[in-house]
Amino acid sequence: MPAMTAGTSVVVIAGGTGGARFLRGVREHLRAADPGTPTDDRVTAVVNTGDDITLFGLRICPDLDTVMYTLGGGIHEDQGWGRADETFHVKEELAAYKMRPDWFGLGDRDTATHLVRTQMLDAGYPLSEVTAALCARWAPGVRVLPMSDERVETHVVVDEGDGEHAVHFQEWWLRMRAQVPARRFVSVGADGARPGPGVVEALAEADVVLIAPSNPVVSVGTVLAVPGLRDALVASPARVVGVSPIVGGAPVRGMADACLDAVGVETSAVGVAGLYGARGHGGLLDGWVVDTADADSVAAVEALGIPCRAVPAMMRDVPTATALARDVLALAGELREA
Amino acid sequence: MPAMTAGTSVVVIAGGTGGARFLRGVREHLRAADPGTPTDDRVTAVVNTGDDITLFGLRICPDLDTVMYTLGGGIHEDQGWGRADETFHVKEELAAYKMRPDWFGLGDRDTATHLVRTQMLDAGYPLSEVTAALCARWAPGVRVLPMSDERVETHVVVDEGDGEHAVHFQEWWLRMRAQVPARRFVSVGADGARPGPGVVEALAEADVVLIAPSNPVVSVGTVLAVPGLRDALVASPARVVGVSPIVGGAPVRGMADACLDAVGVETSAVGVAGLYGARGHGGLLDGWVVDTADADSVAAVEALGIPCRAVPAMMRDVPTATALARDVLALAGELREA
Repeated sequence: MPAMTAGTSVVVIAGGTGGARFLRGVREHLRAADPGTPTDDRVTAVVNTGDDITLFGLRICPDLDTVMYTLGGGIHEDQGWGRADETFHVKEELAAYKMRPDWFGLGDRDTATHLVRTQMLDAGYPLSEVTAALCARWAPGVRVLPMSDERVETHVVVDEGDGEHAVHFQEWWLRMRAQVPARRFVSVGADGARPGPGVVEALAEADVVLIAPSNPVVSVGTVLAVPGLRDALVASPARVVGVSPIVGGAPVRGMADACLDAVGVETSAVGVAGLYGARGHGGLLDGWVVDTADADSVAAVEALGIPCRAVPAMMRDVPTATALARDVLALAGELREA
Repeated sequence: MPAMTAGTSVVVIAGGTGGARFLRGVREHLRAADPGTPTDDRVTAVVNTGDDITLFGLRICPDLDTVMYTLGGGIHEDQGWGRADETFHVKEELAAYKMRPDWFGLGDRDTATHLVRTQMLDAGYPLSEVTAALCARWAPGVRVLPMSDERVETHVVVDEGDGEHAVHFQEWWLRMRAQVPARRFVSVGADGARPGPGVVEALAEADVVLIAPSNPVVSVGTVLAVPGLRDALVASPARVVGVSPIVGGAPVRGMADACLDAVGVETSAVGVAGLYGARGHGGLLDGWVVDTADADSVAAVEALGIPCRAVPAMMRDVPTATALARDVLALAGELREA
């Protein structure tokens, strides 16, 4: 297998937990393959900000924070979001003041991140600069770019009570636990958004673009819905390889099935590959990676015109995520050679 | 001694810890003297807001919070400020982000109070309504009124480095620990401030106005500097009795001596009585209460035209504060009878 290591420029399109863990695997693989060279300039994360929300006057960017904390060593590993050694006194007290909503897991340590971000945004700094400032502390070892500096928020149209109405994605995800069927998702603000600074350039200069095993609808889909971003990806000379977030017909984490249902896509490794589509046929993918549990799906994916590999894709810890990154980059390397 | 209990309407002018403990004593005394009648409508606290500060985007009102937490059972009793069972993770994290300043003791539980307040203020509610909303949780048993809804901030002019410059009171108090001599205090915003809603009315309707053993310069002095407030006090039919915050020539708490030095007043029970002055002679006081340790000052205070009593004035706990309140109200009662 050709080595996709030294000098390879990698862009990863990522949501929260799955994206963050996959990014950490990519970073660890590149570090191991080429120990002398920092990864910071070689790996760029383009992160979903459609889950962002303002609560209690705090601007909260769940996916950016999950990426930052995971790569910076501050994540609650078992949980996959939020800070290790977290306490919830701010949240308890807000509840004692009868502040709503009460369904958001606002940690005390996490609150400090939101305070810094909110202050900088209020002072006029764009989210990309705020993210860079926060990352100065976390030293994630990759460049972390918000998909856009403009505010884009995913709202979910649901039937509830006497009719259709829209709730913020976080309310649907956390309060309703995605149990109320989504009729559709609306990216509020997406029309006027542009890709964040550096995003289009990173895509244009990339050797490989990886689509992390993140929610294909509300994470990756939201990133791709930023006007100009999908076009930049399609125009990129990079090989584009995605990793299925669906294993054995179910999401590895989260409730992506509820999101796929809403857009009429089957919750399967093949279904998501079809959603992204084959490059050269109006889609994005030069390659697709499924878990070994879905080895019997490889033929169906390749029938869509997408070269496919089955590898162990369950990121149980850093070594398994690193091995996954190695396998995915190997496929990208083969595709470059082909 | 005449009973100053049922039906007596009391206004207390208060700063932070000393004011809050004294207020709790007043409440407890009135409750004990007249168990059937709620104190909420009979006791009004007019609280200094000159120490208020905006840090990390949070509007912080230290004296209002100390009063609220003390009367609401949430105070850290030994410390006299901040919350019981407090943690400091937000503060630790802000420091990890290299946020400045690092000298403010921002607790996690406390942060929730500031978040609620900041949101309500940003939504357009005046501080008095915000305070009432916060007190709906704490049920302090007295009416807590900010001295003003307008923003008034005490700044301290100091010599530092190559010249005179002004710092926020909190910076002087906490970072400099009042060790850098104050040249003068400036109440920024006081010129355009008005007494908060209900303050003038409470003074006009009061039977007794008590000046708590708070810092006479930056707490009580700042309250009295709100245009119209001092006039309302002087015009009030109430008896005005103060309690010396200086015992044995030193402040019971805090660094009031540094403040008194700056305004050229001796740090003594007599000095502070003279600063407030005798009513009918351009001053405020109908009576003055000193600690028994200063019994030999009684004659000097009375020579200023201010009836004076020496009683145990050290508020070591709720019972001693309650006894002090009883003694102070007894003096006010005598003065009313006289």
